[in-house]
Amino acid sequence: GGPMKHSDRIVKLRDALLDAQAALRTAPHAGSVVLIVTGIPAAGRSETVHQLLDWLDPKFVTVHALRRPDASQRERPALWRYWIRLPPGGRIAIFFGAWYGDILLPVRDARGTARTFDAVPECRALARIRRLETMLRRDGVQVVKVHLHIDRRTQRKRLRALRASTLTRWRVKPVDLWLARHHAAVRRLADRCIRATHRPGAPWHVIDGSDGEARALTVGRVLLRALRRAKEPAVTARTARRAPAVRRRHAATPAAFKTHQEGPDVSAEAYRRALQVLQGRFALLTRRRAFARRSAVLAFEGMDAAGKGGAIKRLAQALDARVYQVVPVGAPSPTEQRYPWLWRFWRHLPRRGEIAFFDRSWYGRVLVERVRSLTPAVDWQRAYAEIREFERQLAEHGIVVHKFWLAVSREEQLRRFRKRDADPLKRFKVDPEDWVNRRHFAAYERAAQEAIARTHARHAPWSVIEADDKRHARLAVLRAVCERLERTLDAGA
Amino acid sequence: GGPMKHSDRIVKLRDALLDAQAALRTAPHAGSVVLIVTGIPAAGRSETVHQLLDWLDPKFVTVHALRRPDASQRERPALWRYWIRLPPGGRIAIFFGAWYGDILLPVRDARGTARTFDAVPECRALARIRRLETMLRRDGVQVVKVHLHIDRRTQRKRLRALRASTLTRWRVKPVDLWLARHHAAVRRLADRCIRATHRPGAPWHVIDGSDGEARALTVGRVLLRALRRAKEPAVTARTARRAPAVRRRHAATPAAFKTHQEGPDVSAEAYRRALQVLQGRFALLTRRRAFARRSAVLAFEGMDAAGKGGAIKRLAQALDARVYQVVPVGAPSPTEQRYPWLWRFWRHLPRRGEIAFFDRSWYGRVLVERVRSLTPAVDWQRAYAEIREFERQLAEHGIVVHKFWLAVSREEQLRRFRKRDADPLKRFKVDPEDWVNRRHFAAYERAAQEAIARTHARHAPWSVIEADDKRHARLAVLRAVCERLERTLDAGA
Repeated sequence: GGPMKHSDRIVKLRDALLDAQAALRTAPHAGSVVLIVTGIPAAGRSETVHQLLDWLDPKFVTVHALRRPDASQRERPALWRYWIRLPPGGRIAIFFGAWYGDILLPVRDARGTARTFDAVPECRALARIRRLETMLRRDGVQVVKVHLHIDRRTQRKRLRALRASTLTRWRVKPVDLWLARHHAAVRRLADRCIRATHRPGAPWHVIDGSDGEARALTVGRVLLRALRRAKEPAVTARTARRAPAVRRRHAATPAAFKTHQEGPDVSAEAYRRALQVLQGRFALLTRRRAFARRSAVLAFEGMDAAGKGGAIKRLAQALDARVYQVVPVGAPSPTEQRYPWLWRFWRHLPRRGEIAFFDRSWYGRVLVERVRSLTPAVDWQRAYAEIREFERQLAEHGIVVHKFWLAVSREEQLRRFRKRDADPLKRFKVDPEDWVNRRHFAAYERAAQEAIARTHARHAPWSVIEADDKRHARLAVLRAVCERLERTLDAGA
Repeated sequence: GGPMKHSDRIVKLRDALLDAQAALRTAPHAGSVVLIVTGIPAAGRSETVHQLLDWLDPKFVTVHALRRPDASQRERPALWRYWIRLPPGGRIAIFFGAWYGDILLPVRDARGTARTFDAVPECRALARIRRLETMLRRDGVQVVKVHLHIDRRTQRKRLRALRASTLTRWRVKPVDLWLARHHAAVRRLADRCIRATHRPGAPWHVIDGSDGEARALTVGRVLLRALRRAKEPAVTARTARRAPAVRRRHAATPAAFKTHQEGPDVSAEAYRRALQVLQGRFALLTRRRAFARRSAVLAFEGMDAAGKGGAIKRLAQALDARVYQVVPVGAPSPTEQRYPWLWRFWRHLPRRGEIAFFDRSWYGRVLVERVRSLTPAVDWQRAYAEIREFERQLAEHGIVVHKFWLAVSREEQLRRFRKRDADPLKRFKVDPEDWVNRRHFAAYERAAQEAIARTHARHAPWSVIEADDKRHARLAVLRAVCERLERTLDAGA
């Protein structure tokens, strides 16, 4: 630490950093920068970050040093607390450890020996990190990772010097001493982790921490390159306006969805009774003790006027208002557009014991954004894998994920549009866009069928509901939700 | 509940509600509406809210039904979880219970008897609510409160009917039965609470819940009036452009701040040593067990170039990055302007064991906004009381609140501006606005002196620091923080 001599190199670097930061802030469609700082005790992590903050305009940098997850964080999937802290375009976020924090810090076991590298869960965690970083990069986030290292002797000397004076002793915490005693094990762990996640789009920079000035210069230059790269808009933004038209991926047009159920329509009286029975069943399921340890994410998709809102309402009516939220999803707002595309869905994940109903969802990426060419093909095509990854993380956290496609026929949709247009109380539901979307009915159906085929999974299944008869559709949704919850809660008990 | 006949009155009301909602959304500077729904079991709270959601465009309404505070909520003052959920201008938020939730629900004591009305804390809580609602109203939030009531016989009959059928039994929870058994006590509690908080700007509407249609109509009309009132911009927005010039409140110009300390300047070596000693003392204080149950909010004010950032940096250097955040405060963003003015500060309150450094703060309301006539006099004048209330709530929650005025002379400021202008590495710190502000130096000093005099309190004191010598100022700030923490933690232990 200590004030640093303003050598020429540093002056030049500071100047360039300020320029790059200002340019990034004002560039249209700019990406963001995530700088992850890891390292071993006494290698100078805090000093380096303080130094960077001193060089940059600190108003546009946020530093995150997350402690062990608190209760509200443990109620969401592990990556949630990082997702909601991602910086918007034009900004910098510095994370101490970030998603490497949990892996890089070896946990002491009961005997006080360093935890060995536990192959299976770690490999899975590392693969997850690779997928996350790939996705962030494609969404315009420059992920830069620096690991500060010093050799065993230097570390010991520094810690000894700090502890020798009452003035600096407080800087050394017990965990630092423990980590220093296990220098070799910590190093092996870090090496392994770094090797597994060092990739072209998100490289690691292992930096020698023994010299304060050289260390800060090196990290500063790494950051400078990232700032300059971030200024170039992500692939998405650059090509958004010249996206190719929707390509027919399947030579044969698949059959249209079944929109009308077998057998007679449901009478009003039978509907009322069945609704009551199912709502009771649903309510009791959510009050089971096993559900208090889980949560549910129910996504509703379908053409305009397919009855998504009505189906959600019949589910919500059965619940205490404290345990659910309805998340209406439309086009991303200007604010939302400054973040990676899944960010706005991560923000609304439910706590344990709660249910989130998504009225439209992340599938918009491969439905409306695809059909209406709002997103370049290269981006919506990668969304299938990104959605699978997202839903897998929810499921692994114990969230019951279920997706509904309410299938309505083109004729029935027209009848409903006309009825809405005629009813002054429902006119707010009709958007000129709906009529435009209707012209693309067949393209939507094809996109939906591909989305369903590519994202249907045991842990995150789709239910396709015949929805030309609203009563039938609502009961079918309730029934599917109840059956899914019963299966899940019984299996988990 | 059950589906309701679309009588003419309802059709008319729905039509008016949709119109009013759309008008509110598009009006410039529109206020927001907070609808609070309370009531006794079986009086139809959920049904009424569902009905309203059915009538309104649900995309622009958020319903909040908060459960008992979770860990992260308990770490902040009681009203925090409501503040961060206030709707922006143009929107509606419906709260079940809201800040009345904790008061209206009588807690069963060990013997299962209804808690009696505990006069002292309740009176304080009710006074706090009155101040909150007054403030919200002045900031353009229409607070509307409805309490649904049914008589004892109707309640019993309804609960019995619900419990008689296996189809509806699940709707009745044990707490409902308990509350029903204590019908009279619950009623007394509600009456008292309603009488104490029924005020012209935030009236209660006690509504008979025995008839579903009449109930929904009445609540709908109450909401309709609020929507229409909210469309009229708040006093603030309406008069913002014709705010009166700053009035001299004190006939005599008070003496300028003392900007230079007694005695000799601090030498570089003495500074370095003293800094180290104080940083160590500060670090150890924040690691004391007593601090883990508290938190600190440290606000820094002063003229441009007074050294606020530098002082904060010297404090932050002593801390683990995990336990503090620096909150730089500038002019409110367009988003922030859509909320009550204190909202953006509530959002950044620290968790237990953490420290928030505010680089400028809520005092901007009575400093820059006053001096530069950005806020009408009627609004910044009420801010003193609002600030006192805000800081009192933090202090009562155990947050150590301390405010610093770094007093720099006009001459020293000029020297620093010139130095910054000449230094390419500090040029980002110079804003043309700073030179404009400088012309108002004397007005700023007067405003600061009034602010300090009117908001200095035992639990939230000001320290005025002579800041012409940066080294002296930084040490003085550190010393004041340490002394305050020591006093507080020793007293609490």
